[in-house]
Amino acid sequence: MRDTADAFIEMFTLPGAPGGPLAGLTFGAKDLYDVAGRVTGCGNPEWARTHPEPDAHAPAVADLLAAGATLLGKTHTDELAYSLMGVNAHYGTPINTADPRRVPGGSSSGSAAAVAAGLVDIGLGSDTGGSVRLPASFCGLWGLRTTFGALSLDGAMPFTRSFDTVGWFTRDGETMARVAEACGCPAAPPPAGLVMPVDLWARADAATVEAAARSLAALQDLAGPIRPVVLAPGGLEDWRETFRICQAAEIWQTHGDWITAHAPAFGPGVRERFAIAASIDADTFAAADRRKADLRARISEVLLPDVVFVLPTGPGPAPLRTADAASLDVFRTRAFDMLCPAGLGGLPQLSVPSGRVDGGPVGISLVGPPGRDRALIALACAAGLGSIS
Amino acid sequence: MRDTADAFIEMFTLPGAPGGPLAGLTFGAKDLYDVAGRVTGCGNPEWARTHPEPDAHAPAVADLLAAGATLLGKTHTDELAYSLMGVNAHYGTPINTADPRRVPGGSSSGSAAAVAAGLVDIGLGSDTGGSVRLPASFCGLWGLRTTFGALSLDGAMPFTRSFDTVGWFTRDGETMARVAEACGCPAAPPPAGLVMPVDLWARADAATVEAAARSLAALQDLAGPIRPVVLAPGGLEDWRETFRICQAAEIWQTHGDWITAHAPAFGPGVRERFAIAASIDADTFAAADRRKADLRARISEVLLPDVVFVLPTGPGPAPLRTADAASLDVFRTRAFDMLCPAGLGGLPQLSVPSGRVDGGPVGISLVGPPGRDRALIALACAAGLGSIS
Repeated sequence: MRDTADAFIEMFTLPGAPGGPLAGLTFGAKDLYDVAGRVTGCGNPEWARTHPEPDAHAPAVADLLAAGATLLGKTHTDELAYSLMGVNAHYGTPINTADPRRVPGGSSSGSAAAVAAGLVDIGLGSDTGGSVRLPASFCGLWGLRTTFGALSLDGAMPFTRSFDTVGWFTRDGETMARVAEACGCPAAPPPAGLVMPVDLWARADAATVEAAARSLAALQDLAGPIRPVVLAPGGLEDWRETFRICQAAEIWQTHGDWITAHAPAFGPGVRERFAIAASIDADTFAAADRRKADLRARISEVLLPDVVFVLPTGPGPAPLRTADAASLDVFRTRAFDMLCPAGLGGLPQLSVPSGRVDGGPVGISLVGPPGRDRALIALACAAGLGSIS
Repeated sequence: MRDTADAFIEMFTLPGAPGGPLAGLTFGAKDLYDVAGRVTGCGNPEWARTHPEPDAHAPAVADLLAAGATLLGKTHTDELAYSLMGVNAHYGTPINTADPRRVPGGSSSGSAAAVAAGLVDIGLGSDTGGSVRLPASFCGLWGLRTTFGALSLDGAMPFTRSFDTVGWFTRDGETMARVAEACGCPAAPPPAGLVMPVDLWARADAATVEAAARSLAALQDLAGPIRPVVLAPGGLEDWRETFRICQAAEIWQTHGDWITAHAPAFGPGVRERFAIAASIDADTFAAADRRKADLRARISEVLLPDVVFVLPTGPGPAPLRTADAASLDVFRTRAFDMLCPAGLGGLPQLSVPSGRVDGGPVGISLVGPPGRDRALIALACAAGLGSIS
């Protein structure tokens, strides 16, 4: 069965609880969250073949149902969530209806594509290294990566021990605010000020910075002048590599045995990434893990007292579906530089549409201290972000 | 004769005109400006030996005298102005009294050092690639590079056809405002807004950005929120190299014959730079000169309508006098990235002290459209810059 955005791997209807705060809204769930009685496929046929049907809904699914949202199906994901582009060699690439020439982004590709196409109101995704934030930017959506550890990932495919988070897509801020509240993000006070990490801004295209600048002007009108900082005094490569090594090593800890036992076919890119993950030795991982603690300390230092980082979500609009591997590599490196700080810091990050570049949507992000998810949404709504272009 | 900052190559007194707007103030003139009856040495003994005493004052000197400032002598310069550090193999390195462990910066080294030490109120310098801006930042001074072509460089050693400008150092903004007015910079309306070139900010040290951020906050309180841009969409290397090639080729056009005829001894660094300048062929120069036109167009695009770029003047505090060549090269490259836009655009740039990093002063810069020199000074004074730390 195909939907108009090739977003769903399986469509069905599970009605939400009547009278809940999300009653009347619909959602799609990334196919690495358990839905009782349906195999969780995680974007790979061999995974689907070797895993039983779960008995219960994942809490992230159950929470949305309990709040009244109706589940309309399970959405595509990059294989085992290990990609950012939304290209799946087995199941195809969902259509980014905001600009069909471009990839939708991933790994929460189907949930993003389904919301963008208007097939559902809410897309349930997950974000480890950018898997909600980047597709939100690519598809012109609001996308929230929640604070690490704040919401349960039980019943979701484990990926990394240290970075996995629940996330959602919506088409507007008011819906995002309702979802975050209904799903258990605590109320949070507004931030004390805005901070601009200039080293991260410098990784974005000129036109993407220009788009973000218009949203930033609205934020500054509301929250006061922004303060520039350099987040990574020693350069971003250190941050990117620390994240990459920790992520890859933890992924192999999680999935290495299954991959070794089943030797599943992986698509291009994913295959190479798992091979690299397998090759990271214990000493390299231990050194990166120690370095991670230093970088977290730097994040805490810069985020105190209680400020919000503002930056373009990604380096530019989504790559074209026809982009070659070399240009994708360049894009991915720059995207990682911009995305890894929230991952390393366990921070919530909200991406909001900030305009279009060469026809493709781009987003601006608010990154806050842990637990301030709803404050980010409230700030973006109050500033009128998402309707500026 | 040595002064307390080793700033002067020659001290004497030429009284200013009585009753002028700068009456009561004193100045030192970089030894590439003509003072009647005294050889203009340009930082190189062979140059001094092969050039006659001038008959008249350079207009930049005469203007200060006519405005009432008293000339107290001629100050050291890097050899033929072809360096940014203030280190002269023949005459030594003036003392940066703001932090004596560090170089004073150049090529207007002696004028900066003399003002910093309180030996004079005004330092007359010149700025092609940063020769006023960088020593101002290094020595904790106000430093103005004037709009290209606005003030006469007659009677000054020619260096490049396209980039040379008159500049001054002072210890405070009020004096700078008086000097600029007295020497013929026209009155100018205030700018419409502030712009932050994030790619240039990202070339500065974290602590230097932190210092600049405090000044920026005061500027934003006065002039409204700042708007981020990427000045160089294709990267700064293109800008730096375009400037470097055009500068070097023009220098060789100016000085090649004299150097070939006299084979003067040059100190380390300067010698290599002249050798490179000699090696640039006509096609390379022509290509860079055409590229310069594109970059000027980009500057015009971003500076319209009528905004002021704000950025740290240099990447960090002055290098230590003991710094090795490799670390100086890294510093110089980053400094060039930050300094070359005003050079390429013929723009006025004002550097104002923004604090100290590791004991050494650092500056923040305002870069404006051509002719807006006095608007930059007025903005900095109104925001209280130079007294924030």
